[in-house]
Amino acid sequence: MNEAVTIKDVANELGVHPSTVSRALDPAKRGLVGKDVVQRVIETAQRLGYTPDAAAATLRRGRSKLIGVIVPDIANPVFSPIIGGLENALAEVGYALIVADQPADAKSRLDIIETLVARRVDGLVLATAALIDDAVERCIRRGVPVVLVNRAEESDRAPSVVSDDVEGMKLAVEHLISLGHQRIIHLAGPKALSTGSLRRKGFKAAMKAAGLSLSRHAIVESTAFTRAAGALAAAELLKRNPDATAIVAANDLLALGAYEALTRVGRRCPEDVSVVGHNDMPLVDMVSPALTSIRISHREMGDAAGRLLVALINGQETSGSRIVMRPTLIVRQSTAKAST
Amino acid sequence: MNEAVTIKDVANELGVHPSTVSRALDPAKRGLVGKDVVQRVIETAQRLGYTPDAAAATLRRGRSKLIGVIVPDIANPVFSPIIGGLENALAEVGYALIVADQPADAKSRLDIIETLVARRVDGLVLATAALIDDAVERCIRRGVPVVLVNRAEESDRAPSVVSDDVEGMKLAVEHLISLGHQRIIHLAGPKALSTGSLRRKGFKAAMKAAGLSLSRHAIVESTAFTRAAGALAAAELLKRNPDATAIVAANDLLALGAYEALTRVGRRCPEDVSVVGHNDMPLVDMVSPALTSIRISHREMGDAAGRLLVALINGQETSGSRIVMRPTLIVRQSTAKAST
Repeated sequence: MNEAVTIKDVANELGVHPSTVSRALDPAKRGLVGKDVVQRVIETAQRLGYTPDAAAATLRRGRSKLIGVIVPDIANPVFSPIIGGLENALAEVGYALIVADQPADAKSRLDIIETLVARRVDGLVLATAALIDDAVERCIRRGVPVVLVNRAEESDRAPSVVSDDVEGMKLAVEHLISLGHQRIIHLAGPKALSTGSLRRKGFKAAMKAAGLSLSRHAIVESTAFTRAAGALAAAELLKRNPDATAIVAANDLLALGAYEALTRVGRRCPEDVSVVGHNDMPLVDMVSPALTSIRISHREMGDAAGRLLVALINGQETSGSRIVMRPTLIVRQSTAKAST
Repeated sequence: MNEAVTIKDVANELGVHPSTVSRALDPAKRGLVGKDVVQRVIETAQRLGYTPDAAAATLRRGRSKLIGVIVPDIANPVFSPIIGGLENALAEVGYALIVADQPADAKSRLDIIETLVARRVDGLVLATAALIDDAVERCIRRGVPVVLVNRAEESDRAPSVVSDDVEGMKLAVEHLISLGHQRIIHLAGPKALSTGSLRRKGFKAAMKAAGLSLSRHAIVESTAFTRAAGALAAAELLKRNPDATAIVAANDLLALGAYEALTRVGRRCPEDVSVVGHNDMPLVDMVSPALTSIRISHREMGDAAGRLLVALINGQETSGSRIVMRPTLIVRQSTAKAST
């Protein structure tokens, strides 16, 4: 076990009272002690390897300087840059980040909030929000500052940082229209998640704005944001729309699933069918064909969520504000002129 | 701020002494209180939303049930499954995981250890070890239980969980030899990291075992495990070895850099030059050509590191043991029969 050096050890070494050491090490009370004493205390503390005890400070101040973040799946590469941005923003102001994977069942999802609250986290970041989310409800009831990232609730009862999903779909559809596509179909994400729901809405709005018709067969919903679920849903989508020339997928993993479904029915991308993804996750520039996608600044989103949470904790932010990041279109080889 | 319900609140609600509540909620002391009192206390505590205070428990027990993990780059998809495995193993026994990105400069690297120690973490996992590592030195001096994952030190002064890098390179080289390759070259990783150093050693050993000659031009070292550094080093490697038919890269990102370098000099993979990666990171099955790679079970490595650390904390493990995971060869489209 860790034999921590205490203030008492530093005091004994110098032959002074522990309260002198304590004052000398506290920037707010340092003025009460002579300058040379402060100097000697700091030197001795460093030499002995004294570090202020964060657990004791938590009890004194009622703050742990710990933030919990819950992600749907730590192993999913999309969440790495969000966590990186968060960690960066929080470390700057002395907060550390506890990372937790979302448990599969609803009860454990609330248990993990309780576990983090018991650790006295100063706030929580949820990358897991459903449109109506029990965990958000729990945080609000418990008075725990909470910020949502990537996915938001339907109502703005908690502040959030999200990408403009509707704008992203507009970029995707307009890009395809500029290449001459008209029979465009949508490989949708789960409706219960804001990303799935808003991107579907954005797709419909963009098609309508362009004056393109949309049959009720033109959208198929995937059961999850995974390649396997995408391949399944894309197979169904292609069966229902044999004459479609372009697929807009609700995220990159679904788009890669669509590649598999196309290969299976012997259709080529982009010669026969163009495909657009969403997220521009790492390595989609290296897949074959390189994926045209909607870039979301995940790192910046994590960074903004961290700053928003700190402002919330410090009482500088109160309302359910929503920060919306602007996505951009990244054109690669998976989209081409429509075959007529 | 979080207005936590205290033991006092529960006591007031029931009209009993706080110590009664405290006993009723402690499984070890519950026998001192009547059964119906225990029942009422538990019900009231749940109703009011009382949760035991982890910060106070930390001071009482001297344990925080927090583990720190430091990774070279949170945003690198290779580390996501390691963190996922760790989190899973630790959550099972009630530990939470603080995740920190390794700072760029050497001094801050030690500062982050101090910051985590000040938070009274019960132990540390380092995914960042150099062959001789200052941070490991610091942990040992401070008596903080530490486990290394993915990369190990030269000496086994701290326990570690790593992949068998030498065996992995043997699999890669033997696979190429079975396809008729003889002029095989190595795109090496940084020598200062165990992964870079051991894979280079493994490459040399496998070539020697196969009776193949190895000129001193046949290995070029990348400055970092990134695609960009890989492309640069691969360009140099190809210039020095114009007649080589196969490249063994020290990891997948370097292999993807080699793809870029090959394209730039107008050589095709696998028709002209075969390429083997290392790690089998997410999505390398989707790149073009799909990358033949050495699969490392990163999630299992994280899981094993978590269990090892808990054993170390509980005093069930003392020595500098090294757990070595067996890698496997995954053959895809980037390797083919040698062109003669």
